[in-house]
Amino acid sequence: MRRSSLRLAAAVLLPVALMGGTAQAQGQVYKSSAHDYRIVTVASGFVNPWSVAFLPGGDLLVTERAGRLRIVRGGKLLPNPVAGVPVVVAAGQGGLLDVALHPAFAQNKVIYLTYSKQITGGSTTALYRARFENDALVDGKDIFVADTKGRPGHFGSRITFDKAGHVYISVGDRQIGPEGDLTAHPAQQLSNHHGKIIRLMDDGRVPADNPFVNKAGAKPEIWSYGHRNPQGLTIHPVTGDLWEIEHGPQGGDELNLIEAGKNYGWPVVGFGVNYGPGKAIHASTMLPGMENAKNVWVPSIATSGLLVYTGTKFPEWKGSVFVGGLAGQRLVRLTLDGQKAEVADNLVKNQGRVRDVRQGPDGFIYLAIDDSQGKPTSVVRLEPVARR
Amino acid sequence: MRRSSLRLAAAVLLPVALMGGTAQAQGQVYKSSAHDYRIVTVASGFVNPWSVAFLPGGDLLVTERAGRLRIVRGGKLLPNPVAGVPVVVAAGQGGLLDVALHPAFAQNKVIYLTYSKQITGGSTTALYRARFENDALVDGKDIFVADTKGRPGHFGSRITFDKAGHVYISVGDRQIGPEGDLTAHPAQQLSNHHGKIIRLMDDGRVPADNPFVNKAGAKPEIWSYGHRNPQGLTIHPVTGDLWEIEHGPQGGDELNLIEAGKNYGWPVVGFGVNYGPGKAIHASTMLPGMENAKNVWVPSIATSGLLVYTGTKFPEWKGSVFVGGLAGQRLVRLTLDGQKAEVADNLVKNQGRVRDVRQGPDGFIYLAIDDSQGKPTSVVRLEPVARR
Repeated sequence: MRRSSLRLAAAVLLPVALMGGTAQAQGQVYKSSAHDYRIVTVASGFVNPWSVAFLPGGDLLVTERAGRLRIVRGGKLLPNPVAGVPVVVAAGQGGLLDVALHPAFAQNKVIYLTYSKQITGGSTTALYRARFENDALVDGKDIFVADTKGRPGHFGSRITFDKAGHVYISVGDRQIGPEGDLTAHPAQQLSNHHGKIIRLMDDGRVPADNPFVNKAGAKPEIWSYGHRNPQGLTIHPVTGDLWEIEHGPQGGDELNLIEAGKNYGWPVVGFGVNYGPGKAIHASTMLPGMENAKNVWVPSIATSGLLVYTGTKFPEWKGSVFVGGLAGQRLVRLTLDGQKAEVADNLVKNQGRVRDVRQGPDGFIYLAIDDSQGKPTSVVRLEPVARR
Repeated sequence: MRRSSLRLAAAVLLPVALMGGTAQAQGQVYKSSAHDYRIVTVASGFVNPWSVAFLPGGDLLVTERAGRLRIVRGGKLLPNPVAGVPVVVAAGQGGLLDVALHPAFAQNKVIYLTYSKQITGGSTTALYRARFENDALVDGKDIFVADTKGRPGHFGSRITFDKAGHVYISVGDRQIGPEGDLTAHPAQQLSNHHGKIIRLMDDGRVPADNPFVNKAGAKPEIWSYGHRNPQGLTIHPVTGDLWEIEHGPQGGDELNLIEAGKNYGWPVVGFGVNYGPGKAIHASTMLPGMENAKNVWVPSIATSGLLVYTGTKFPEWKGSVFVGGLAGQRLVRLTLDGQKAEVADNLVKNQGRVRDVRQGPDGFIYLAIDDSQGKPTSVVRLEPVARR
């Protein structure tokens, strides 16, 4: 019952008998160690919403995996999708994925999208750059097309920016293996973009100080490697550290601190086993020359969406890291002690699959709730409740 | 500073200048998701307290690893240890370990101790049974001496009872290896007591329905195997399930649900690596025929002390599992959903090494705080604080 409550605001699609549930969910107060909170529906009727961005005027942009970029205006989901979105391959885990505003959007109106782009024999992760004018995308073009191929899964594809004007995106391993020689897995090779964090200039050019620009046979866009399927990537607004989460195998989701040129170990090291049979994957959980995760989820919660909170609405959460869980249906709060992370709370339990986690300009925490069956879902936000 | 606050009540041993810290610690309110609480010193001046038991009249019995059984009466630690305690080998992790009252103690005055007993070429885990009369142990004798040898570590040795009149104790793997053929490790063999949970009649006889009584070459006392160093063992007062925690290697502490005759995998499966070098240990994190843990701590917190709370002082914690952390310096609360466990709170952070966790007859939660340097420490209890 609870799981469905967040979808109820898609009221037109649901029997009136269920409506009572909405009010209840809106009114319910959830406790946690530092703050109590409510879960409030912002807008409803999305199908597989993947990412949320905030426009200066108060509108929200929300991607739907099938290939639609939607606008929420005055709390209402506008019926017509934004024009000018690239053609996506909406298959498996692929489609229209992340959306992010250029740090100077107020001046240049530039936005970025990641998506699954058709290539010969399949699809790959691409980064699309356009201007957003009069509710439409104009002058759009791909500024990065990953050199990957594989099954229609593990596209990764979050977008973040540093203060020096670089854009970073995450690319998944495309569900290749692992089998045989783990060190030969594409995520361990620098000659492709499988399982990599990518660093570019904001126009797509390759920065001269990327770690592998002068390495023969290496893709110059690579910032780090050895990743599986990173669906969370964010620059810490205060420290500038680059944080990442990735879907692990069964029992191996990770929170990582990403540093230039480093190897994060997939599939050579990790805590997971293959889904289903529970077959062993890794040579070890740790090895020299491979970075350890800052947090591992055993069992996996299917991590997606990553935020470092800096708002004032939840003072005791300032500086905390928030991670969404899909199969795990939760919002995890982790405290940071320098670069050490530890789980503090499991919030928003069993309220739906949390695909994206964002901080609004208003300081509330916004979540995009996904549904594996493609049922309509909502964008919600957490609002603090003073303790009685 | 915080870490020392629990030891301050050992006032006679500490400069008066520090005394302010005690009052402060007593007064401080700690928040958690369901209950806020205070940490109140019950009695102080213990050296390496290992276990706490509650006598009908309100006295506490506390073991000190060096070989002393102490009485707390009217909030005061009596100067003279209890007479009649067996001679222990107080070396490494060994010494006087667990203390538990027979379920019918009010009638039969029987108590049990586990300790490190001298044997040829070393020591092993033994279970001692005696009557407690006039503040002394009488008619004491060993009712079980484990067939183990190894380094002076990993003795395990918690005691618990089921409603059918059986006593269970945990025995550690005595820090053997692991190296070479993991399936040949003593914890994987039924011919010894390394890394086993033991089930006996309350007088030490072997129950006829133990899983391996009719298996040639197997020790008939074995209830389960494949354990590393279990320092927590308790029968769920409501469900009767047998729960266990064990110290894993680096990154592999476990909470397990113990079932007759099952293999818990050490050292063949697990999530850890060797301390120090981080060298790989396991064949996998899971394998058919080996039980998966109900919770794994990555990184390790050094789990010791296990309680299923059934009191009324913390209504929202009723049915929760509490686990102590030594190196991790905390009390972990896990919620149970049937036989599924999940971490809900990390309580009592950085307040000292939590060696034992018990529920008092008063419904408060009592902790024995240990110190790796052998400094005097306290037994404390958690008391609820109504939320403002």
